[in-house]
Amino acid sequence: MSIHDRLFADFAAGKKAALARAISIVENHRAGFEELLSTWHPLLGRARRLGVTGPPGAGKSTLTTGMTRALRAQGLTVGIIAVDPTSPFTGGALLGDRIRMEDIALDPGVYIRSLATRGSLGGLSAATREACDVLDAFGIDRILIETVGVGQSELDVARMADTSLVVLVPESGDSIQTLKAGLMEIADVFAVNKADRPGADRLRNEIEVMLGMRAGAVMRDDSTHHGVDLSQNNILRQVRAAVAADDLASWTPPVLRTVAARDEGITELLAALDRHFAYLEASGKLRERRLLRLRERVVEVVEEKVRRRLWDDADTARWLESRLPLLEAGTATPFAIADDLLARSASLISG
Amino acid sequence: MSIHDRLFADFAAGKKAALARAISIVENHRAGFEELLSTWHPLLGRARRLGVTGPPGAGKSTLTTGMTRALRAQGLTVGIIAVDPTSPFTGGALLGDRIRMEDIALDPGVYIRSLATRGSLGGLSAATREACDVLDAFGIDRILIETVGVGQSELDVARMADTSLVVLVPESGDSIQTLKAGLMEIADVFAVNKADRPGADRLRNEIEVMLGMRAGAVMRDDSTHHGVDLSQNNILRQVRAAVAADDLASWTPPVLRTVAARDEGITELLAALDRHFAYLEASGKLRERRLLRLRERVVEVVEEKVRRRLWDDADTARWLESRLPLLEAGTATPFAIADDLLARSASLISG
Repeated sequence: MSIHDRLFADFAAGKKAALARAISIVENHRAGFEELLSTWHPLLGRARRLGVTGPPGAGKSTLTTGMTRALRAQGLTVGIIAVDPTSPFTGGALLGDRIRMEDIALDPGVYIRSLATRGSLGGLSAATREACDVLDAFGIDRILIETVGVGQSELDVARMADTSLVVLVPESGDSIQTLKAGLMEIADVFAVNKADRPGADRLRNEIEVMLGMRAGAVMRDDSTHHGVDLSQNNILRQVRAAVAADDLASWTPPVLRTVAARDEGITELLAALDRHFAYLEASGKLRERRLLRLRERVVEVVEEKVRRRLWDDADTARWLESRLPLLEAGTATPFAIADDLLARSASLISG
Repeated sequence: MSIHDRLFADFAAGKKAALARAISIVENHRAGFEELLSTWHPLLGRARRLGVTGPPGAGKSTLTTGMTRALRAQGLTVGIIAVDPTSPFTGGALLGDRIRMEDIALDPGVYIRSLATRGSLGGLSAATREACDVLDAFGIDRILIETVGVGQSELDVARMADTSLVVLVPESGDSIQTLKAGLMEIADVFAVNKADRPGADRLRNEIEVMLGMRAGAVMRDDSTHHGVDLSQNNILRQVRAAVAADDLASWTPPVLRTVAARDEGITELLAALDRHFAYLEASGKLRERRLLRLRERVVEVVEEKVRRRLWDDADTARWLESRLPLLEAGTATPFAIADDLLARSASLISG
């Protein structure tokens, strides 16, 4: 029995240990990883993928742990992909967060995997997507993709999730005005975590005002007459009415209050996430998002194949090396050499 | 006179306003950007490129401002590239930092430019490299590349600089043990900034111990006999001796103390940076680093050309669109479609 046959058999039998082996093969692009993912491709689309993002210290891991316990209580299996864009300056803090997950890690219905920038050959976002695909193929019901909330990674993760949960804390309030563009773009559901702290209501209001501004900028005109507070209440009322009237044909991101450390608000949060999924299905957005994901996946695979075919080729490497002195002397430019390289590599790239 | 001819003329005449126009053309990959960079390519290599990185709040911008003033006092022109890996969660804090640079921004011998993730078509690291090339071609003497210290960006920036300065503050001390791998890899010079605060000496010692551990792991054996403190002093003595004996054939990153807000330690810091540059020249490492950079630049240009040629092609887009239903149905895999796409795109990619 080949390694792959064993993996397929173990997957069919639901052996959790096979998951770790499969993700390692895929993450490191070891021999046969394409065959594995190709075989599993027809099985994809059963899992729901949830992105969990937010600034460091927002309690994402604690909230993820709480949601996982609740999902397990519903009889669902859960996979957690913790995405770590490795930074020499933020590495330490994350480690601590992740340790809190230990109690759920022992549950046979839970699988946890950290992915870091280094060691994922096709880049972090490809590795994350591939790990999710492995979990989906295995038959995991819910995949939670947690990022550390730095850099470009939230936007990437948002694009690979069905639903994006943005976790904020009252302390985030100060800077929220400057941040709204990015947040508004990715959030399907907001959680105001540590909601027992001062400022939670203010943060929630601010988010809802921002959502209102997105929904109908025309309402802002009122503020000059009634002052800022009244205007905000005005907007809030309309936003809340719109949310209440939501008939699954449109979606305004709800803002939930949670205290993850005391397991408060988790049930309501999961209900909101279910509701968003129902909206996605009913509106046709689920298919739309998933088609977009498939398209992005092909683009990712194409670019990775080009990179591998070009840069793993010893002859190309020698040729490029021979060009460096010309570049150094200024008698050739990077653009001219790139053109030459591509002209001579047609058969290499086309495979 | 074409736009490009005007730019070349303005560059030759040293008109600073031309810099902003040139970088915009390059950053947005507007028509003719390859021609511009190609024309300037033979002029490159005159500027010294310094990477400035460190955790948020370390005072990088204040230190950059201080170094800029001191370099200007030496009669050198300075270009500052502030790299902002746009995050919905960290955007706000940075803005404040940058405002402090206003006083040097008015100096005609200083050019400041912020680059953000969005809007740089070839990706942030390509945009940064290209902006540095424009500054270099213009005749700027020193280029300071400042990053916000999150994500993968420090490592990328380190690879495009001649010298990498890592800025830490006493508050960074707690987490330094877990972070050493990344730091040690990129740092040529350390600045312990805000060195008037408690913990500055401890941080400096910790860095030096880590540097010692890198230099000679064998010394660690002593610690079991003499206890940690004695062992650390031991290592420190040897590290300091090595630094003192440094004959420009080897390099141990020096750890400088600065209080950027009061302009303290700037002169010594610049001297250390000059010394590192002299070491790079004398050891042949400068040529080595720059050849590696040229090689990476070709790779970057090749990949960008492939992306443009493939994904800007309407026929390829239509073909890919026609494949999505097969992918969705599970009757084709991303790998098979990627292979097909590359097989049919040989002439497209080879140009």
